[in-house]
Amino acid sequence: MRCQIFRSLCRPRSNRVSDLGCIFYCPSSQRQRLFSTTPRRNVRTTEMTDEQLAAVKIDRERLWKVLHSTCEWGKGERWGDGPTDIGMSRLTLGDADKQARDWFVETTKSLGCKVQIDAMGNIFAVRTGKNEGPPTYAGSHLDTQPTGGRYDGILGVHAGIEALKTMNDLDIETEYDTGVINWTNEEGARFPISMISSGVWAGAFSLENAYKLVEVGGKATQKSELERIGYLGTLEASHKANPIGAHFELHIEQGPILESSGGKIGAVEGAQAYKWFTITVRGRDCHTGTTEFQNRSDAMLTAAKLILHSHNKARADGCLASTGILKLRPGSTNTVPGWVQFSLDIRSREDATLSKLEEALKKDFERIANGEDVSGVNAQGTKGRGCTVEWQLDTDSPATKFYEDCIKCVEESAKSMLGTNAGGQVRRMTSGAGHDSVYTSRHAPTAMIFVPCREGISHNPAEYCSPEDCGNGAQTLLGAMLRYDRYRAEKGA
Amino acid sequence: MRCQIFRSLCRPRSNRVSDLGCIFYCPSSQRQRLFSTTPRRNVRTTEMTDEQLAAVKIDRERLWKVLHSTCEWGKGERWGDGPTDIGMSRLTLGDADKQARDWFVETTKSLGCKVQIDAMGNIFAVRTGKNEGPPTYAGSHLDTQPTGGRYDGILGVHAGIEALKTMNDLDIETEYDTGVINWTNEEGARFPISMISSGVWAGAFSLENAYKLVEVGGKATQKSELERIGYLGTLEASHKANPIGAHFELHIEQGPILESSGGKIGAVEGAQAYKWFTITVRGRDCHTGTTEFQNRSDAMLTAAKLILHSHNKARADGCLASTGILKLRPGSTNTVPGWVQFSLDIRSREDATLSKLEEALKKDFERIANGEDVSGVNAQGTKGRGCTVEWQLDTDSPATKFYEDCIKCVEESAKSMLGTNAGGQVRRMTSGAGHDSVYTSRHAPTAMIFVPCREGISHNPAEYCSPEDCGNGAQTLLGAMLRYDRYRAEKGA
Ligand SMILES: [Zn+2]
Ligand SMILES: [Zn+2]
Repeated sequence: MRCQIFRSLCRPRSNRVSDLGCIFYCPSSQRQRLFSTTPRRNVRTTEMTDEQLAAVKIDRERLWKVLHSTCEWGKGERWGDGPTDIGMSRLTLGDADKQARDWFVETTKSLGCKVQIDAMGNIFAVRTGKNEGPPTYAGSHLDTQPTGGRYDGILGVHAGIEALKTMNDLDIETEYDTGVINWTNEEGARFPISMISSGVWAGAFSLENAYKLVEVGGKATQKSELERIGYLGTLEASHKANPIGAHFELHIEQGPILESSGGKIGAVEGAQAYKWFTITVRGRDCHTGTTEFQNRSDAMLTAAKLILHSHNKARADGCLASTGILKLRPGSTNTVPGWVQFSLDIRSREDATLSKLEEALKKDFERIANGEDVSGVNAQGTKGRGCTVEWQLDTDSPATKFYEDCIKCVEESAKSMLGTNAGGQVRRMTSGAGHDSVYTSRHAPTAMIFVPCREGISHNPAEYCSPEDCGNGAQTLLGAMLRYDRYRAEKGA
Repeated sequence: MRCQIFRSLCRPRSNRVSDLGCIFYCPSSQRQRLFSTTPRRNVRTTEMTDEQLAAVKIDRERLWKVLHSTCEWGKGERWGDGPTDIGMSRLTLGDADKQARDWFVETTKSLGCKVQIDAMGNIFAVRTGKNEGPPTYAGSHLDTQPTGGRYDGILGVHAGIEALKTMNDLDIETEYDTGVINWTNEEGARFPISMISSGVWAGAFSLENAYKLVEVGGKATQKSELERIGYLGTLEASHKANPIGAHFELHIEQGPILESSGGKIGAVEGAQAYKWFTITVRGRDCHTGTTEFQNRSDAMLTAAKLILHSHNKARADGCLASTGILKLRPGSTNTVPGWVQFSLDIRSREDATLSKLEEALKKDFERIANGEDVSGVNAQGTKGRGCTVEWQLDTDSPATKFYEDCIKCVEESAKSMLGTNAGGQVRRMTSGAGHDSVYTSRHAPTAMIFVPCREGISHNPAEYCSPEDCGNGAQTLLGAMLRYDRYRAEKGA
């Protein structure tokens, strides 16, 4: 068999590389070695030609198989007939999350990684590179929403592990350490601040406050659960104590833009701004049968008006507004609730637009609760005795801009993979959702890779990313990490 | 001391009657006896003149004191500085309800009553009368809303006990048995069908279905809790096995009409019709940050529109509409809920008006959920992918008309008590709320007595009925029961 690259006879070391030809094991390359018998590896990123780099390929089948095998832990609702047509319910720090974490640690250790756990339970698995310096990571999360899918977060972590496996298989020596991070409680579904753990790492939240977070509908705290499942690590959760050289995150788009435009890879330039509020409406409990509308202070009716108005106003301003949680008291069919609390999530690409929306809603909510008409929501009802509205800011995530050099590595990797079709299939995008990369970008060069997911559905059991798109994403991720490693060597950092 | 009625010298038997003069103990009346030494009682209702009847007075202080002493069991939120300015949270069949029940049984037994408990835990305490025939009852309930007050239901039961105490004190012999009923789970707050137990008695619900009711937010059933607290009685819960001769229910108005019109006693002619529904809105969970409005099936936003529209439409039709319970899934700040369920309580004085409203809302809800505009609720928002709406009827209580003869006894009793002022202070009313009397009226002569409560507030810790109004109500209740007893004797039933 003749090597197509080095134009010589070759001898593939394993089945894995047979389709790649002989690029790393060709006798003529003078570098044929087995990792197990020598401390020096086969090939350095800085010595690879673009052609060689393009030939480094992940094992797409392995990625798919391993990803779904680990989705046994915390599996949720079945939504289709296929073997993987089952959602996920792997809330952070629960028993299923512990199983997934244990698997992560074992697997990365078996790949030769050094594994460390920090005080927030974030897991850092590092594969040794040639030079000193903070690692170039692939990072994402293994936790899910209560009714989530198999790709959000999970794909990014698995793609990172597949990247390390491929580096091992091909015996690639990186200039700097590379690694994979599993961030704790990205979703904020159980302990209700999302990305809290990369947030602590970035210094956006104190460890103390993060530890105190109480689970929704329960009593456990983030700290008590970390302790319970054995993931309260000793490494300081801090960008200073544990710096990151670069952070690449592969993620499903969670929106329909790539799919509807025929795009394959999104090179994510940044993330939209968002704020999360808890809105408390206070009225007065009263009997539903004996209290005329004009004598009511109906907190539920008021909340309904506020939710509708937040939608109408956000639409007018080109923003998003959503309510995902609503609680009321006392909670009886024949008692008008005197207390309602709901979450309000508002988003915009621009910080200034978001602030404008926030200010407008604050004024409007008060007027609506007082019975004044704003944009029609009080136009037809009976004016009651009014309610009060209180705002509490829970999360403030300004618009984020990722690192141009990282974004370029993503673009180059994607274009190399897609070849001649790459033109329209790689596009720059803005993330609608928050991600751990938003926090890592505060202290480390960061970029994200988006792949399409069917109909843009996410945070839903039926979330789906095809084997082809999962593979494309993981391949782009590995290529971006290797390219960034070369880039660091050139820059000398 | 000269008797003002019999114009002779008298010798009061106890302090209790000293202010009444000597009407029952005057030597000249030839009927001075002690209950303990003779099976025959002192005075028969049929032999009492109107003047004598007017002189039979309850002990208002005792009523107030006893009522509040029993409110230690299940006390709720403090809302003022006074010793009784504390709400109630005595959910049916809980431990506090058991204490109140035990007190009820002991107290009525100590008054010489025969006490029976039926299969729904309803307690019937009966004081023996002269003739055979079903008892004339005062009935109401000792359970409360989770954030209820001290008067709703509780006043009616205590007034009944005070009526029996007064009959004992004055050694009154009734023609027919008299008694007090404590109905189980009137509120429907814990097991979510209100008046379920008088409903089973009336044949409106099967015992089997009532037993199966599961508590809101828990797993216990009505039957398991009846067993647990020892109130699963052996008497059949049925109007056939355990008939009622007449049912009088004293209750706070739970609305502001009496207070704002200077009324003292409401002679209640009937109750408005109402229906309770559980409305389920189904959409699709999706990520709040990545899903544009047009791609959403937002069940929470849809529910907000439906709740607002139910209010607007009910107002236009002169009805009431209220939502007291709302649940959603999955319940995470950054996930648009794909599932919302809420209660809808609609009410009207007329059955036909209520049916018309129901039909209109069924059509409108479907259109609104589909994104069509109905009365402006969809006028400004972005049309999404739509949701479905499902209706489940939980309770159907048609408009009720009480018994004219019972209502007249209430009016006469109230006018006799109020004397010269009675003119504008006694008024006929319709009940806005459902009460156990609605079910008793299906099989027994029934009427209700309303007394004012401050600002019409009820189902709220700050619910308040003054000592004067509590006393007026209990006095009217006793007078109505005695008058009805005479009326039964005249009619011979
Ligand atoms: Zn994610
Ligand atoms: Zn009541």
